[in-house]
Amino acid sequence: MEQQITLAALAGLLGGRLTDPARGQAVVRGFRALDAAGPTDLAFLWDAKYVAAARTSKAAAIVAREPVEGGASPTIVVADPQAAMLVLLGQVHARRHPPEPPGVHPRAFVHPEATLGEGVSIGPCAVVEAGARIGARTRVRAGAFVGLGVTIGQDCVLHPNATVLDHCALGDRVVIWSGAIVGKDGFGFVNQGGRHARVPQIGGVRIEDDVEVGALSTVARGALEDTVLRRGVKIDDHCHVAHNCDLGEDVMLIGYARMGGSVTMGKGSYLLQDAAIGQGLSVGEGGVVGSGAKARYDSVGPGERVLGDPARPHMLMKRIEGTLPKLPDMRRRLRALEKRVGKLDGQGAGDERD
Amino acid sequence: MEQQITLAALAGLLGGRLTDPARGQAVVRGFRALDAAGPTDLAFLWDAKYVAAARTSKAAAIVAREPVEGGASPTIVVADPQAAMLVLLGQVHARRHPPEPPGVHPRAFVHPEATLGEGVSIGPCAVVEAGARIGARTRVRAGAFVGLGVTIGQDCVLHPNATVLDHCALGDRVVIWSGAIVGKDGFGFVNQGGRHARVPQIGGVRIEDDVEVGALSTVARGALEDTVLRRGVKIDDHCHVAHNCDLGEDVMLIGYARMGGSVTMGKGSYLLQDAAIGQGLSVGEGGVVGSGAKARYDSVGPGERVLGDPARPHMLMKRIEGTLPKLPDMRRRLRALEKRVGKLDGQGAGDERD
Amino acid sequence: MEQQITLAALAGLLGGRLTDPARGQAVVRGFRALDAAGPTDLAFLWDAKYVAAARTSKAAAIVAREPVEGGASPTIVVADPQAAMLVLLGQVHARRHPPEPPGVHPRAFVHPEATLGEGVSIGPCAVVEAGARIGARTRVRAGAFVGLGVTIGQDCVLHPNATVLDHCALGDRVVIWSGAIVGKDGFGFVNQGGRHARVPQIGGVRIEDDVEVGALSTVARGALEDTVLRRGVKIDDHCHVAHNCDLGEDVMLIGYARMGGSVTMGKGSYLLQDAAIGQGLSVGEGGVVGSGAKARYDSVGPGERVLGDPARPHMLMKRIEGTLPKLPDMRRRLRALEKRVGKLDGQGAGDERD
Repeated sequence: MEQQITLAALAGLLGGRLTDPARGQAVVRGFRALDAAGPTDLAFLWDAKYVAAARTSKAAAIVAREPVEGGASPTIVVADPQAAMLVLLGQVHARRHPPEPPGVHPRAFVHPEATLGEGVSIGPCAVVEAGARIGARTRVRAGAFVGLGVTIGQDCVLHPNATVLDHCALGDRVVIWSGAIVGKDGFGFVNQGGRHARVPQIGGVRIEDDVEVGALSTVARGALEDTVLRRGVKIDDHCHVAHNCDLGEDVMLIGYARMGGSVTMGKGSYLLQDAAIGQGLSVGEGGVVGSGAKARYDSVGPGERVLGDPARPHMLMKRIEGTLPKLPDMRRRLRALEKRVGKLDGQGAGDERD
Repeated sequence: MEQQITLAALAGLLGGRLTDPARGQAVVRGFRALDAAGPTDLAFLWDAKYVAAARTSKAAAIVAREPVEGGASPTIVVADPQAAMLVLLGQVHARRHPPEPPGVHPRAFVHPEATLGEGVSIGPCAVVEAGARIGARTRVRAGAFVGLGVTIGQDCVLHPNATVLDHCALGDRVVIWSGAIVGKDGFGFVNQGGRHARVPQIGGVRIEDDVEVGALSTVARGALEDTVLRRGVKIDDHCHVAHNCDLGEDVMLIGYARMGGSVTMGKGSYLLQDAAIGQGLSVGEGGVVGSGAKARYDSVGPGERVLGDPARPHMLMKRIEGTLPKLPDMRRRLRALEKRVGKLDGQGAGDERD
Repeated sequence: MEQQITLAALAGLLGGRLTDPARGQAVVRGFRALDAAGPTDLAFLWDAKYVAAARTSKAAAIVAREPVEGGASPTIVVADPQAAMLVLLGQVHARRHPPEPPGVHPRAFVHPEATLGEGVSIGPCAVVEAGARIGARTRVRAGAFVGLGVTIGQDCVLHPNATVLDHCALGDRVVIWSGAIVGKDGFGFVNQGGRHARVPQIGGVRIEDDVEVGALSTVARGALEDTVLRRGVKIDDHCHVAHNCDLGEDVMLIGYARMGGSVTMGKGSYLLQDAAIGQGLSVGEGGVVGSGAKARYDSVGPGERVLGDPARPHMLMKRIEGTLPKLPDMRRRLRALEKRVGKLDGQGAGDERD
């Protein structure tokens, strides 16, 4: 927080109630986790499983839905501690990372045929090419690239060294993190005379409102049609969206999640860390490809949860995982049984090969 | 296409025959897939498995090897529909992504001791260091970096924010995508006094003609000798070529494919998506490390196809994959058998541990 | 080496003894591996398993702990051939990659409120934001980004197009490779009204001395507390350190290694290539998560070595791996046994489902 605020003022700011008004003038200087907080830190409790940590916390105060009984810290009781946390963290974040002042930095290059909305900021060594149109208050930070004919909505952020290639279209409040590459040609090749011949990719990338693309993630442009990220898609770092994929609203990709071309993901579905889904397959609404799972052969149904490589229904894969450590022993037992049965039926152990 | 062309003109351009000359003046404005094409779109059919889609297509015309019977769209019959497609897509692509005008952008930095061929273009905020030599018509786009003593052939493209570090050598028609890093020091450390000591990497990277390195892929320089990518190697996004690897002609790496140091890959071999091969191993000519397969322990022979982790022959791994879902049930059946045999031979179930 | 040195001079430089003084005036021009070295190359032998290669080497001389008997090349005998190699390679490396001259390149942007130590060099199109403090002799190469309030120690290198975002703190002799992103906001979201709401990340990244972060690797900033990389951590390319992780001294991450949030790694522990460890878990001192292993469910103890997905003790996983190819055959044998036992006890094969 880098400045101080009293518990009474905090309670007022959050529309909450301080359980120990006598401490209203105690001062908070920062936020920390329940177990790390000291006497000038605020902490938050919104998940009942951390009640014990709240009771032993040394925080100046704990923001929670109900008073934390039996601990040393007073509670600031609010209706939604999580929402309160987002508000307060957002204020601190905004103070730590103030937006650049509007305007084109003298070391930026903006093509004269680009159009910038009101309050746009273009950072040093950023480049905006011809025909680009950038909406109000959008920040193109240092070293970021905006290609030919790209359209970007309002209140977006392209972080330092982000790259949005020619003709991509971004909605409002889109965040592209450093090192992300949007609009690279999809990896399309055909065999021509025994060599790999590039298929020119003439589709685009269409990104709707409130999408976040993580650091060092790639969104490839479509071959003929567009690759589409719908409203609210959130992509972590090191992920890959291939050409012609269509990611539904609120889809989430966790680190290193990836897909083949022309994959369709339904609303609110997930690829967890390191999950993959093969070319042309789909994930239904609310479906989950589990951590490290590879949906190579089959699509994933609505609400279905798969695990493993190749991916299988989650519960089946858990049973397989649980049995695998028994496998070497099962082999030994099978051999022992064959010998015993051989003695019983006089046909020998029955398998010469093992 | 962003402009229009008649079917008759298209047929002429492709050296093909329009099956319904009465429609020669119909106008095409773009390309789309067979099932998405509308009455001003052209579509292509080169794989017999899409004949049904061609019959129900609403395209202005379909470019195909033989007339598409039974559909509403006329056919432009050509000898090689795939080659025709590449030509037309290439024209559209060139129009959508026109090369930058030749010359050094006023916001670029080119060291006075660098040498630029005829028609070279250096984009805004691109940097070319001392001793670099760049061949005719090569484009170093915005924000790209060309290090000390790098040599680049003719007609290459370094896309925005690509990085080619000191002393790497690139042939002709090489494409380096945004965010790719060529010539990073290989990850070589030795133990010196209980700490990791860096082994200075003094090899280079040699990239032959017609190679493509995808977005956010890395090619590490060699320890003593060069890392080599031979003619026609195509690398997708997020891949890694380690120090001292030697990738043969027309090798293809699909997304996230990676390898340990000193790997050798034979001509026309593949690492499919997320495949890996361990340090010092090799893939023979035409060999394929399947999607997600990890060739940890053994090299892959010429023409061999492996799957799984650890990688095994493709057909064996498919059989293992097919049997795995039976594993929990096999354990139950094994236990049941032990009991039955115990009753028969009076020696008990035979295994106390399970 | 790009210049020449005599064997006598080399022996002097390394404090070693040339076994064949008559060859003292022979000239060395470079280093190569034992089997690739020619008559003007120096080679090194420090691992006894390469003695045979040393005997057949054509090198001008071999640097080794003892004279190589039976070969054509003389030996330069030194106490520690590996240390000798590091010294010589370091000299060559420094000559091939000379540091940029101190000073701010006219095409760089350094905010007037940033502080640069003695001998700092800031390359063309690099950007240093307000409040940054950069220690003596640190090199910020072309296109690299140093954010608001970042502190960097002495003798660091930020390679071209590296990105260090706001408020991160780096120690001395830290190396950040091209395309690496340090200080990206961790991927923290909560469900608010059915949508993914960003949790503002107000922690930082603290990197101690002698850390190396590879090309295209990410180190996310903490949610509330800092993400920490302790002295001597070495990170390869394409790796990911999530928010609030704490990597102990001399930890090593090999290519594509990754982790969930709040992971703790003990001193000298490893994630090998493509290894992963789940949120909140830990690796004890000297523990090893093997190549491709995924420690999803359990932490890894001190000195423990795990393998597989999900990760299991190394020796158990090797036994499972060794048994897996037998699995299809085990199923066949199990069925055969059931039939034989059915004949013996008259209860049938016992399993109708398979």
